[in-house]
Amino acid sequence: MVSRNIELKGHIIDSLILPRVFEKIMNLNGEFNVVKFDIGKHKTDESHAVLEVIGKNENHLDDIIHELHVFGAFEVKPREIKIEQVQKDRVLPDFFYSTTHHPSQCFYENSWIEVQNPEMDCAIVVNKEEKNAKCVKISNIKKGDNIIIGIDGIRVIPPPRSRKKEVFEFMSSDVSTEKPLHYLIKNIAKEIKEAKGGVVVVSGPAVVHTGASDDLAELIRNGYVDVFLGGNAVAVHDIEHSLFGTSLGVDIETAEVKKGGHSHHLYAINEIRKIGSIKEAVNSGLLKKGIMYECIKKAIPFALAGSIRDDGPLPEVITDVMEAQNQMRKLLKGAKLVLMLSTMLHSIAVGNMLPSTVKTICIDINPTTVTKLMDRGSQQTLGLVTDVSSFLTILKSMLIAN
Amino acid sequence: MVSRNIELKGHIIDSLILPRVFEKIMNLNGEFNVVKFDIGKHKTDESHAVLEVIGKNENHLDDIIHELHVFGAFEVKPREIKIEQVQKDRVLPDFFYSTTHHPSQCFYENSWIEVQNPEMDCAIVVNKEEKNAKCVKISNIKKGDNIIIGIDGIRVIPPPRSRKKEVFEFMSSDVSTEKPLHYLIKNIAKEIKEAKGGVVVVSGPAVVHTGASDDLAELIRNGYVDVFLGGNAVAVHDIEHSLFGTSLGVDIETAEVKKGGHSHHLYAINEIRKIGSIKEAVNSGLLKKGIMYECIKKAIPFALAGSIRDDGPLPEVITDVMEAQNQMRKLLKGAKLVLMLSTMLHSIAVGNMLPSTVKTICIDINPTTVTKLMDRGSQQTLGLVTDVSSFLTILKSMLIAN
Amino acid sequence: MVSRNIELKGHIIDSLILPRVFEKIMNLNGEFNVVKFDIGKHKTDESHAVLEVIGKNENHLDDIIHELHVFGAFEVKPREIKIEQVQKDRVLPDFFYSTTHHPSQCFYENSWIEVQNPEMDCAIVVNKEEKNAKCVKISNIKKGDNIIIGIDGIRVIPPPRSRKKEVFEFMSSDVSTEKPLHYLIKNIAKEIKEAKGGVVVVSGPAVVHTGASDDLAELIRNGYVDVFLGGNAVAVHDIEHSLFGTSLGVDIETAEVKKGGHSHHLYAINEIRKIGSIKEAVNSGLLKKGIMYECIKKAIPFALAGSIRDDGPLPEVITDVMEAQNQMRKLLKGAKLVLMLSTMLHSIAVGNMLPSTVKTICIDINPTTVTKLMDRGSQQTLGLVTDVSSFLTILKSMLIAN
Amino acid sequence: MVSRNIELKGHIIDSLILPRVFEKIMNLNGEFNVVKFDIGKHKTDESHAVLEVIGKNENHLDDIIHELHVFGAFEVKPREIKIEQVQKDRVLPDFFYSTTHHPSQCFYENSWIEVQNPEMDCAIVVNKEEKNAKCVKISNIKKGDNIIIGIDGIRVIPPPRSRKKEVFEFMSSDVSTEKPLHYLIKNIAKEIKEAKGGVVVVSGPAVVHTGASDDLAELIRNGYVDVFLGGNAVAVHDIEHSLFGTSLGVDIETAEVKKGGHSHHLYAINEIRKIGSIKEAVNSGLLKKGIMYECIKKAIPFALAGSIRDDGPLPEVITDVMEAQNQMRKLLKGAKLVLMLSTMLHSIAVGNMLPSTVKTICIDINPTTVTKLMDRGSQQTLGLVTDVSSFLTILKSMLIAN
Repeated sequence: MVSRNIELKGHIIDSLILPRVFEKIMNLNGEFNVVKFDIGKHKTDESHAVLEVIGKNENHLDDIIHELHVFGAFEVKPREIKIEQVQKDRVLPDFFYSTTHHPSQCFYENSWIEVQNPEMDCAIVVNKEEKNAKCVKISNIKKGDNIIIGIDGIRVIPPPRSRKKEVFEFMSSDVSTEKPLHYLIKNIAKEIKEAKGGVVVVSGPAVVHTGASDDLAELIRNGYVDVFLGGNAVAVHDIEHSLFGTSLGVDIETAEVKKGGHSHHLYAINEIRKIGSIKEAVNSGLLKKGIMYECIKKAIPFALAGSIRDDGPLPEVITDVMEAQNQMRKLLKGAKLVLMLSTMLHSIAVGNMLPSTVKTICIDINPTTVTKLMDRGSQQTLGLVTDVSSFLTILKSMLIAN
Repeated sequence: MVSRNIELKGHIIDSLILPRVFEKIMNLNGEFNVVKFDIGKHKTDESHAVLEVIGKNENHLDDIIHELHVFGAFEVKPREIKIEQVQKDRVLPDFFYSTTHHPSQCFYENSWIEVQNPEMDCAIVVNKEEKNAKCVKISNIKKGDNIIIGIDGIRVIPPPRSRKKEVFEFMSSDVSTEKPLHYLIKNIAKEIKEAKGGVVVVSGPAVVHTGASDDLAELIRNGYVDVFLGGNAVAVHDIEHSLFGTSLGVDIETAEVKKGGHSHHLYAINEIRKIGSIKEAVNSGLLKKGIMYECIKKAIPFALAGSIRDDGPLPEVITDVMEAQNQMRKLLKGAKLVLMLSTMLHSIAVGNMLPSTVKTICIDINPTTVTKLMDRGSQQTLGLVTDVSSFLTILKSMLIAN
Repeated sequence: MVSRNIELKGHIIDSLILPRVFEKIMNLNGEFNVVKFDIGKHKTDESHAVLEVIGKNENHLDDIIHELHVFGAFEVKPREIKIEQVQKDRVLPDFFYSTTHHPSQCFYENSWIEVQNPEMDCAIVVNKEEKNAKCVKISNIKKGDNIIIGIDGIRVIPPPRSRKKEVFEFMSSDVSTEKPLHYLIKNIAKEIKEAKGGVVVVSGPAVVHTGASDDLAELIRNGYVDVFLGGNAVAVHDIEHSLFGTSLGVDIETAEVKKGGHSHHLYAINEIRKIGSIKEAVNSGLLKKGIMYECIKKAIPFALAGSIRDDGPLPEVITDVMEAQNQMRKLLKGAKLVLMLSTMLHSIAVGNMLPSTVKTICIDINPTTVTKLMDRGSQQTLGLVTDVSSFLTILKSMLIAN
Repeated sequence: MVSRNIELKGHIIDSLILPRVFEKIMNLNGEFNVVKFDIGKHKTDESHAVLEVIGKNENHLDDIIHELHVFGAFEVKPREIKIEQVQKDRVLPDFFYSTTHHPSQCFYENSWIEVQNPEMDCAIVVNKEEKNAKCVKISNIKKGDNIIIGIDGIRVIPPPRSRKKEVFEFMSSDVSTEKPLHYLIKNIAKEIKEAKGGVVVVSGPAVVHTGASDDLAELIRNGYVDVFLGGNAVAVHDIEHSLFGTSLGVDIETAEVKKGGHSHHLYAINEIRKIGSIKEAVNSGLLKKGIMYECIKKAIPFALAGSIRDDGPLPEVITDVMEAQNQMRKLLKGAKLVLMLSTMLHSIAVGNMLPSTVKTICIDINPTTVTKLMDRGSQQTLGLVTDVSSFLTILKSMLIAN
């Protein structure tokens, strides 16, 4: 029998971390003693626990501690990280440590250093000279990179569940459709105001099809959006709407299918191709309104990622998905709140890139999409099963005085 | 080989009736000759076709003509209806004719008479003295009633698909979530105004849970609702909301779960039971606002049907479901437009009672509910997959100037 | 400032009870000291905590303790229950205690007595002579009943989360569609075998429409079902299938719409009405197979509850919903495992009547139905979003050797 | 007032084409005379109609005829196609004709020539020397290509609705969940046998997550799959399953979350990267079973398209989406039946590339996905809302004797 002491800090009771730690140890047939246990009694107090974890042998104990580390457990006497060098671009050494989406630290040369760019499913590359570490995707790994192996010296810091009454707390347990909607949107409006400077919108084409693109454009014009992410489709239909008044050939004002309307989205793409880019189309006066128009006018950075189902695509669309990921990743730095509007593909893609500290709000008429995003498990995620058009209309009226 | 001539009248081309008739004859291995075929060339013209239908023998021909009658086909030389008398309450003679939900006529003593109270899955009872006929549910059949047997002498008149551009036409083909929503609600508002005097609302409790009951109450107060149908739940939670500000214990303004809130709906029921009835609760001043309050203040007739999942129930709830059906049936006379709000059970129940000439609009966040109601196949049915709370907020703002 | 000591016992850590208690106290602006805290370290150990709960005054303290009692917290020095007499049938005294769905005890004449028939949203009636107490629905309350008022002397015992590895544990956190299905069904088969004698099936008509009624009938014939609950529809279509080979007019073998098929369900009802009852139809040899046939042959008790959307209904259907509830309640005594098959209405109704100790498994193709049932929050509930027909086919093959 | 005669041929009555033509003319405020109308009276007969279409002026008449051409209407006296040359790669001339997904012909130098590679949303490139024409995507257009402008000389041939009784006919009207499932799968098995040599499977990762990958692998091994299409995820999790027994870290046999399982999919990618390719992993003996293994062993051509949400990706994944489209397009030549398994993204992508003559079957637990694919409107599309795991288990047992 061997044992090591681990520590847990923070809101470990009401974030349900401690019970999960106890359960995990028991499920793995380990044992434990509570060495120290200070419970925070006020909303702002943190708790602090020290447990002696007992395993049958070193291997067993390692396994247990490995599983506990995702809850933020860390050894009282931390060990140095182990490092191995990459032999070939985009190929990692065996047993590389793969990251969670939580902020993390690693114990290197006797001190804890912060792991930069926290993102899920990455390797951690250590820069020995600069004594720093950062998350890097497998596709961006280069020969010679120093990679952390195993979990020795890794400390994960799951964000606490916020104790102030807020909209995220309300919805934390489930995705439901029978909730007071106006209350929720009012609070989302408040969150958006508070996150000013770090508001990212990820949008699918349904925003245009349902007639909500004017509302979204107005939000951009009024400075409520700092980064815009999407695919080819949302931009194509937005431009179709701006040039022809239709989306997929359907007139947004009258819901009529327009004569020859099924060609409109191709004609929209072709117009932009003729002039060279969306940006040029705005500058030349061809494009006079819409989501993309406002992004360019306000110099809001945007990224449009290609997908296998694209027509065209538009010139600005990045057809290589790994390049598109890197571009989105860059734009997501500084994100404080991400609004995901009716797109499963791009929402999951963006969700995967975000650290668990960023608030995300997912709006979709399809409960499956909302559930999938909520499953990813941040306590900072709010899912709303509702029509994106009504949502944006009501949100706009709450943010912008008419 | 035997044959008989059948006629088809009306918008049989663009209501897709003629193609279906041709197909049905071929599927049943019959043959046909087109005797006459006048196509309406303008939007308001009717078409008229006479077909000679050919079967292998009388039985085969009868089978074919039976299947065609639901499309409105009727024999050029009509036969008298066959009648048989009921021997025992609630038990019908064999081979009784079971009705469609379309308006129908029967050929009795050499003339066509209208079948009253058109409703699906009924028997037709003929009153020989008064020379009239009406649809009656099996549960209301009495010993001595004269029942139509077989389909001889039955003519069904499926309502034409409207040729004017309208909201029902737009959505006729499918239930989609990616449609211009504001356009649709604007047109629903118009339909409601046109149907004044015949507007029925069928509502589930989600209207209250999502915070939309104030909007619905305001629509009632302003005269936009003529009949209100629902179950125990919508009334209980409406009264809970009026008395305690909560729905299922959740504060509608703040989305907080209230202390002791899980008892509120039972306490609401008990308060009404103490005073004797919802009506008395309004008259005595206990109940001061809400859906039920407005119904009683405006003397809007309502029916609350019991269901197996009810708590309480409230005194006005009809716990015998057959009695409740009859009550709803009575209130549905004169219905022109039925708005079904977030209730599968009551929407299907009401849908079953309605003739195909009544327009129905179904609002639900759950696409399955909307699809099920649309499947029932009236061309006068519009399904909208959206949040009932946003829908009512926007509808109200379109109908009532602030 | 006032305080009282409360106790918590059982698997309060890994059932997440303790963290919720701490959080609740803090949310209500109370304070606490941990007086005693023994943590169970093995899977079978129970924990035991004593907390001193501190409120601003007696009222505040009462409010806090009220909210804590649903987690199983009870005062170290219990008080006697308060009792008041009912003045009028079906009307309760103010502030009556409304029950949870957990097993409970009440402190009467200085000792804890078990509350019988645990069920949610009931009042507790105390029999002073026999010194017992039981849950009674508001609709069954009689003048003279002695009712518990407030929460003094109430102790709730939430069932522990099972610590053995089992199918319920696996699915406890969410309703997902991307799980290894065969594994789950294999374990459900095992649970059914273990629950022999207490297996209840609640079924909707989709079981017949999708062609799964033969499989269900075979399960009944082989003794795997002890009680059958449903509505008119499942019985009507089962009998339609037995008599005509169709369900809603669609041939189950060939998926063809049968000639005159839309009348079959009415004809099925009428045949049973003619002969007087389903039972008589089996005994006379009219009904030769199917779900209802097997129930009657094996003398499986069943209850069919009427609903507002019923045709007919069949003679055995109980059209008064309060009476139907009482009948179902009676049949649910002794239930160990409830299988809910494709029916939202009856599943929720039955779910409401069950104490939290009974295992329930809900099968539905519609995720909304499954989510709604899971929301009710027993830790003994398993939801599976899948096709009921495949489910029953695979389940049958696992339970019955071919 | 001007007029031209148009012809319609084929099963224009029961394919509902004629009524739609009449309606369209009337909606566009045109008029018409029926010049000739021969109705096919037997299942195998074609109908033939000639209509004189009347417009207010040449422009109006052009507009009407434009809209009619998608129904297969063509002018009795065809005009030559108009052609314009491309000035710049990937930029089309104004008013280029954009294709439907139906087979088409164009009238060039006085004779009808078939348009090759029918696909939706393409331009038609005419090769003047070889006197042929083909559909080309905007992204593959080259400077110098001769493009058809307007609709003169275009004839579209919508495929007839099959008149033989078959599984596609059965489901043509809607996506329903309450259908006899075994009957449907039996008929899908028959269709797969008949389509031998042209069976394409498009699959998402849920096939692996739900434990169905062994069944799919067995279908491939037994020669029932001719082309395999998907994304990175299905291949990654298939390989994770083959190497570690898990999918997303969940053990497929026991449904347990494995220790360190969240890294398995990254480790699977890394193993393949180390060895260089999936093919090499099979050849070297590293990969011993699964979907990808069988594809490589049987030399089934496959394409894996990258997407913005990919981890890795695997070496064979094509990260440029336009290149991936072209690769899939190539593999889809010769497709007779496409089975779409639990993937919205790839199913829509593939659906967009297919001509309307190819049968498609879409299996998904999510009704929204099925509805979206059915909306694309081929009469050869069958949608089944069911669990992909049960579906494959039952399908396999019908195709392969145990």
